[in-house]
Parts: sequence; C-alpha cells; structure tokens
Amino acid sequence: MSSRAPRTEVIIVGRKPLLRYVLATITSLNRGSEEVVVRGRGRSVSKCVDVVMTLKRSFFRDLEIRGISVGTDEVRIGERTINLSYIEVRVGRRKGVRG
Amino acid sequence: MSSRAPRTEVIIVGRKPLLRYVLATITSLNRGSEEVVVRGRGRSVSKCVDVVMTLKRSFFRDLEIRGISVGTDEVRIGERTINLSYIEVRVGRRKGVRG
Repeated sequence: MSSRAPRTEVIIVGRKPLLRYVLATITSLNRGSEEVVVRGRGRSVSKCVDVVMTLKRSFFRDLEIRGISVGTDEVRIGERTINLSYIEVRVGRRKGVRG
Repeated sequence: MSSRAPRTEVIIVGRKPLLRYVLATITSLNRGSEEVVVRGRGRSVSKCVDVVMTLKRSFFRDLEIRGISVGTDEVRIGERTINLSYIEVRVGRRKGVRG
C-alpha cells in the first residue's frame, strides 16, 4: 500500500488556526499513522496543548497521550541566538478501540 | 522548624513577568520544598514551559522534570462555560547534587 502514511508523523503547530492542526492530526491518524508528535514552540506551545485537548475532547475519545516532553531550541535570528521553549506531545489511539 | 515550606508547592503562572514565577520557584525549592508543581492555563501554558526551561538553563542545572500533564479546565464566565487547556510540570532537584 504505497499511500500508507509513515508510522510516526510530526505536526508542527504554528500561526494557522487551531483547527488546521487538529484536522492534520486526524488525517494522519486515519491514514494509518501509529503515532503523531504534535510540536509547538514559543507562543505556539499553548496552541499545541489546545490542539491535543481539542482532539481528545471532540474527535477521538480514545486518544492516548503517550508522552510529553519540553525543551529549548536555539534559534538564530540574524546575528542573535534566542532560546525558544518547545513542547512535544506524542499521541495515538488506544489499541482495539476505534470509533 | 515552623517556617519550613510544605513538601510540594504549586506555583500558578499568570500574567506577571516570567521572572516572578522563576523566583517564586527558586524560593520554594531553597526553603525545602521537595517538589514544585508549575501550572499554567490558556495563554500561560507557553509561559509555564518558559519558566521551567529558564529555571533549568539559568538557575538549577540539576533541575529534574518529574512529570508533565495536560488537561482541560472548565471555567465559568458569567453564563458561559469555556474550556481552557492547562499544563502542570512537576520539578525538583536531583538528590545528592546541590549547587
């Protein structure tokens, strides 16, 4: 099956509306991703958590949060380097429960 | 020692400047808290992660992230109920290493 999604996909949360990222995650899981990593940094950290909670509340009751990690990205802007916090939430659907 | 802090303290991250919360956490750990839960919700989720990463990067190299959880608070504003995502990060200092 060549159209099969990879087992783990990363969705980067940025400035687009929340539901874009929710939809991207739903699509990925429905296409067969075993796990999706939803990632946001800087101000998008809040939105990243919103994406996951919206998914769980409104779309996949069986969504499982498999791991959360936080860290710092060093980002170069011109000559300066700034530290940006990031969050990564690994999600997947509970096995044996679909619906 | 009656001035001893409780073993676990909760710091709620809100609209004040980042360093206020960093300082509050440092004070709590230095006064003997075994663990501090840094909590933020809504837009403060990002700031909450910033507080933890600033602590780790600039103040306590031995800071340990012991757990991260996310969820939804239902908040009543007048007659409406809105869902606010929250994050809670449990931190403490690694045992046997102080400095």
